[in-house]
Amino acid sequence: MGVCEGKTFKFSNAAITSFAAVAGKVESKGPYGDEFDEIVEDNKGGADTWEQAEAMLQTKALRHAMDKTPLTTEKMDLIFAGDLLNQCTGSSYGLKDFYIPFLGIYGACSTFAEALLLSASMVNAGYVENCAAVTSSHFSSAERQFRFPLNYGGVRTPTAQWTATAAGAAIVTSEPEPPFIRAATVGKIQDMGINDLNNMGAAMAGAAYDTLSRHFKHTGTHPEDYDLIITGDLGQVGSDLLYDLFKRDGVALEKWHKDCGLMLYDRESQDVHAGGSGCGCSAAMMCGHFLKRVKNGELKRILYAATGALMSPTMVQQGGSIPGICHVVSVESA
Amino acid sequence: MGVCEGKTFKFSNAAITSFAAVAGKVESKGPYGDEFDEIVEDNKGGADTWEQAEAMLQTKALRHAMDKTPLTTEKMDLIFAGDLLNQCTGSSYGLKDFYIPFLGIYGACSTFAEALLLSASMVNAGYVENCAAVTSSHFSSAERQFRFPLNYGGVRTPTAQWTATAAGAAIVTSEPEPPFIRAATVGKIQDMGINDLNNMGAAMAGAAYDTLSRHFKHTGTHPEDYDLIITGDLGQVGSDLLYDLFKRDGVALEKWHKDCGLMLYDRESQDVHAGGSGCGCSAAMMCGHFLKRVKNGELKRILYAATGALMSPTMVQQGGSIPGICHVVSVESA
Repeated sequence: MGVCEGKTFKFSNAAITSFAAVAGKVESKGPYGDEFDEIVEDNKGGADTWEQAEAMLQTKALRHAMDKTPLTTEKMDLIFAGDLLNQCTGSSYGLKDFYIPFLGIYGACSTFAEALLLSASMVNAGYVENCAAVTSSHFSSAERQFRFPLNYGGVRTPTAQWTATAAGAAIVTSEPEPPFIRAATVGKIQDMGINDLNNMGAAMAGAAYDTLSRHFKHTGTHPEDYDLIITGDLGQVGSDLLYDLFKRDGVALEKWHKDCGLMLYDRESQDVHAGGSGCGCSAAMMCGHFLKRVKNGELKRILYAATGALMSPTMVQQGGSIPGICHVVSVESA
Repeated sequence: MGVCEGKTFKFSNAAITSFAAVAGKVESKGPYGDEFDEIVEDNKGGADTWEQAEAMLQTKALRHAMDKTPLTTEKMDLIFAGDLLNQCTGSSYGLKDFYIPFLGIYGACSTFAEALLLSASMVNAGYVENCAAVTSSHFSSAERQFRFPLNYGGVRTPTAQWTATAAGAAIVTSEPEPPFIRAATVGKIQDMGINDLNNMGAAMAGAAYDTLSRHFKHTGTHPEDYDLIITGDLGQVGSDLLYDLFKRDGVALEKWHKDCGLMLYDRESQDVHAGGSGCGCSAAMMCGHFLKRVKNGELKRILYAATGALMSPTMVQQGGSIPGICHVVSVESA
């Protein structure tokens, strides 16, 4: 049986016209804390629960992104959104009051890349004019749902990552101003047999290698053709594994590589172990930091490879492993 | 503030080339039991757990759909899939071994319509050639996750619906043979303030009314232009509400309306209360029953309006309501 190659989609008519990031207090103390559009100082941000607070992060992120444009809700055609909460309620509760057509997606921490690539696909094909990509995560709601309630006080392992309290929103249109989404490759689910809920990076590294390799092959490009190759939240463990995988092909990926999970926090002074994670981690780094640099031309061409661990506590309790996935989006200034 | 209308997508180049349905034992005793491609007699179908059994339903549905075509996995370009399990593991575990590019979606019981409309969008625009839409649900895994463990023996209310143990898979291509997907309208999240986990139909009726109304308006069609208007799983309570909503516009929708939740089981002899539900319910009715009748020309034009209750036990426990959504797809024989 041959290998399924999939397709790399090319876009001539998809731009990220507006973008915004909202983050929590811990994230505001990190190296990029002053790049976010709004900091929610309190873990609940005035909401009654962590889940409602996460939904509010999405509301705020999309509101900020729309406020930078003349677009009102009635001019918006579509939203792609998802998050880590069961039934993706960060998205449905956070975005329902915009009353904009809504397609829910789930890709764990790869969700923002999935939202961008679907938004670009729909705008570039002319189905819609103005399409939003939104995602979020929240440390407290994620720890409770996926690992232990916070007041249990469990000790975190060295491989554990810190789920970011953050959200990002981008509005994709056919406006002729950068950043442009020029190409995208959809990931395949990769199961490396990892079943440690505290070692997400290892579960995702193989998926990042597979999709990046196919993207390079389909587009005839190489790592040196990009200013940066940005993974979502492999963290230290997953990044090291990714370098090992590319080294077998004679590629020193570390020369171009940045990982949002390793950037969001100051790992010296902030106790985040192997780095940040969560849908909101790379969404906030993209919308708070990187897209600005593509917009102003400081970065000409970046590959955004958002990784997701399709991790289910139920499946892991039943002895299952944690499959990973990674979607790749090429963002360019011309 | 004006109302966001969204867009209705038109397709000239998207056909459902193959489709298959797999169902459980209870579903096999219903009026359409002999129309499914495979019946899984045991609730676990040989798997160790209900969740693994649900994943297996998706594996089987896609395998059956592919077996009706010359397509091998390496010729498949993309899968859109989702289900009701937390982290959508019915899809990720059920489809990972196909090793086909995968985009996870979440629309609760509207998922199969979301998968069809996204598949049609991607094929019609030429991004991919062969795209699969897959979804599933499982009575036992859903009851445990959303309501009570089965051995708790809770009494079900008259408004409760029965989550179908079933899966459906469709392969969308540009082949010039019917059934064709000709148009689709994306739903907006509608919150009717319902907070009863056992009254999903009421939570979804408003969403069905909104998306169907916009679809009629955008396409210049009326209910009488269709052979059937098929909702996903409004059940008896939701269907009656939908008729009331259309009655205000002078439309007697009941003349054209069928609800998959009211068809899948024999409500006289099977104790399913307000009808069936679950992503697999309308997917199995579409792939087992309706698409065959469009393919052979018995039905010329049907509207498939799959409804989803974006219901989260966590949010309901926190006092939240259950928002609904509905996506509409027009399936035609010419």
